[in-house]
Amino acid sequence: MSLVVVGSLAYDAVETPHGKVDRMLGGACTYISLSASYFTPVSIVGVVGEDFAAEDVKLLASRNIDLEGMERVPGRTFFWAGVYSSDMNDRTTLRTDLNVFATFEPKLPLSYRERPYLFLGNIQPGLQRSVRAQMNGVKLIGGDTMNYWISDYRQPLLDTIREWDFLLVNDSEARQLSGVSNLKKAAERIMEMGPSTVIVKRGEYGALLFFRDRHGQVRWFTAPGYLLDVVFDPTGAGDCFAGGFMGYLCSRNIDLSDPGADHRELHRAVIYGSVMGSFCCEQFGVDRFRSLTRAEIDARFQEFQDATAF
Amino acid sequence: MSLVVVGSLAYDAVETPHGKVDRMLGGACTYISLSASYFTPVSIVGVVGEDFAAEDVKLLASRNIDLEGMERVPGRTFFWAGVYSSDMNDRTTLRTDLNVFATFEPKLPLSYRERPYLFLGNIQPGLQRSVRAQMNGVKLIGGDTMNYWISDYRQPLLDTIREWDFLLVNDSEARQLSGVSNLKKAAERIMEMGPSTVIVKRGEYGALLFFRDRHGQVRWFTAPGYLLDVVFDPTGAGDCFAGGFMGYLCSRNIDLSDPGADHRELHRAVIYGSVMGSFCCEQFGVDRFRSLTRAEIDARFQEFQDATAF
Repeated sequence: MSLVVVGSLAYDAVETPHGKVDRMLGGACTYISLSASYFTPVSIVGVVGEDFAAEDVKLLASRNIDLEGMERVPGRTFFWAGVYSSDMNDRTTLRTDLNVFATFEPKLPLSYRERPYLFLGNIQPGLQRSVRAQMNGVKLIGGDTMNYWISDYRQPLLDTIREWDFLLVNDSEARQLSGVSNLKKAAERIMEMGPSTVIVKRGEYGALLFFRDRHGQVRWFTAPGYLLDVVFDPTGAGDCFAGGFMGYLCSRNIDLSDPGADHRELHRAVIYGSVMGSFCCEQFGVDRFRSLTRAEIDARFQEFQDATAF
Repeated sequence: MSLVVVGSLAYDAVETPHGKVDRMLGGACTYISLSASYFTPVSIVGVVGEDFAAEDVKLLASRNIDLEGMERVPGRTFFWAGVYSSDMNDRTTLRTDLNVFATFEPKLPLSYRERPYLFLGNIQPGLQRSVRAQMNGVKLIGGDTMNYWISDYRQPLLDTIREWDFLLVNDSEARQLSGVSNLKKAAERIMEMGPSTVIVKRGEYGALLFFRDRHGQVRWFTAPGYLLDVVFDPTGAGDCFAGGFMGYLCSRNIDLSDPGADHRELHRAVIYGSVMGSFCCEQFGVDRFRSLTRAEIDARFQEFQDATAF
C-alpha cells in the first residue's frame, strides 16, 4: 500500500567523534522516506530551495520515491548544524536556518489524497493537522513531534494527535507530554489522548511499543537497539526507525483500528524500525542508503530474532 | 544441581521516593541466594555478627538455604545506608560500616567442596580466588565485582576472573575493566581475560549476554528490563538478577565449557535473571521474597516471552 510522508527536507552539517561533514542531505522527510522505500511505495510532501542539488533529487528518485509533492521555491533549503558528544548520547545544535521551511504550508497533490497511509514527520502541529484534513479516507495515520511543540503548542498538538492511530516519541517527550515519569503509565496516559498505539524510542536501548489487545488490555513489546561495532553518525536514526516501522505496516496492509489484528505484525514493524535505525548510524547522513539492500535488511531482522529469542 | 554462593550478609538502611527503612536484611549473598533458591538448592558462605536476627536466619532457612557456611562471630553485622535519587537511577551511600565483614575470610565447610556450581558475589578478588581454591572439580564458576576492585585491585582481579566461566558486570564496570566504550567490543576484550561468557547489566534497560558459539563466533543476546508500574526499591536487583541467572543454569545442569551446549538455555537464564531482578524492586529489601512463588516467576517469564517475540 502507498504511504505519504510529510516533513522537512534539509541540509545538515554534522560533527561526530568519527568525522565532520559540512553539508549533507538531511531532514526528517528524507530519512523517513528513504527508510520506508524499502518496504512500500512512498510519496513525499516537503519544500526545498533553489540550492537543492540534482544529485539529491536523484537519490530520492532512485528509491522510487514520488516527488510530486516536493515543492521548490525561491530561497535556500532548511539548514541545520550540530555536534555530538563523545559518547554520542547528546548533541548540541550549532545553527538552525529555517530558510524556505519557515513559510512551509504543506499542499497535497490531488494524486496523494486517496492514499491509505500517512506519516506526519515533526513539524508544527497545526500543519500536521492541515495535511490530515486534505486526505480522504486515510486508513492509518501517525507521526512524531518534539519537546518544543509539547511545551509551547500543547493544545494544537492535542487537537492534532487526537486523530492519530499512533504516536512515535522518545522517552523524554513521552514523559513531558504525559506528565508521568513511569513509561508504561506515560504511554497509557498518551493513549487516552487519542492514539491507540504508542511507540517510545530509547536511542541505543531500542524502543518500547504499547497497544491494547482485543480485550482492551494494555500490552507492551520491546525491541533492543542493535549493537553496532561503530556508531558513525546517529543523525536521522529516529526518523529511519519511523520509516521502517511505518513502511512495514503499509507493506502488510495493517489497520490498527482492527481489534482482531495480529499484534505480532506490530512487533515486527518495531523490529524493522530498529533495523533501519541501526543501518542509518553506520555511515554519515543518508550515505548508508546509497548501497543498502533489502537482503541486508532481512538478514539483520534475523539477527534481531537470534538476539532476542529464548 | 547444588550451588554455593559467597558474599556479604548485611543490614541496610534505604530511602527511596516511596519510603524509608532504617534497618532491613540485605547483602549480596542474601539477595543472590534467596533468588537462586527458587531454581536450585543453595548453600551460602558469609559472616554475620551477634546482632544477626533469628527471624532473618529463619527467612533464609525457609527457602531451604544451607547455612552451614554462615559464620557467626563477635561484633556487628555489615551495615550499609543509602538514598536513591528521585528517578532511582542514582544512589548515594550515606554510611558503610564493614564491622565483622572487614576481617571476613571465607572458609568452605567440607560438605561444600565437591559442589559443582559456584557464584562469587562482589568481595575482594583475592578472597574470591581463595574460595575457588577450596573447591574440588567445580564445573561452572562465575561472579561479579565492582569499580573499586577494578581500579585499585586490577591485577588480583585479573588473576581471579581468569579462572571464571562467566563475569557479571554493569555497563560502566564493563567499560572500566576493558578500557573500551562500545559494549560489544568491551565484552570481547573481557572474554580475552578468561570468562567465556559476559553478562552486562543495564539497570532498567535489562541486560546483554555475550558468548561464543560452537564456531568461535561472538554472539549476543538481549533481555529487556521488565516494565514495572512502580519501582519501590532497586536495592539488590542486580544480585537477584545474578541469582536467577545462576540458579537457572544450575537447575538445567549447564556446562558453559561444552561447545555443543544449547545457547537458548543461556538466553533463558538471562531472562530468569531479569524476572528475578524485577520482582526484587516491587517491595523494600527482600520483602518480595516472603510471598513470591515459582508460579509467579514462571508467569512473568511468559510475559517476557510475549513482550519480546515477533
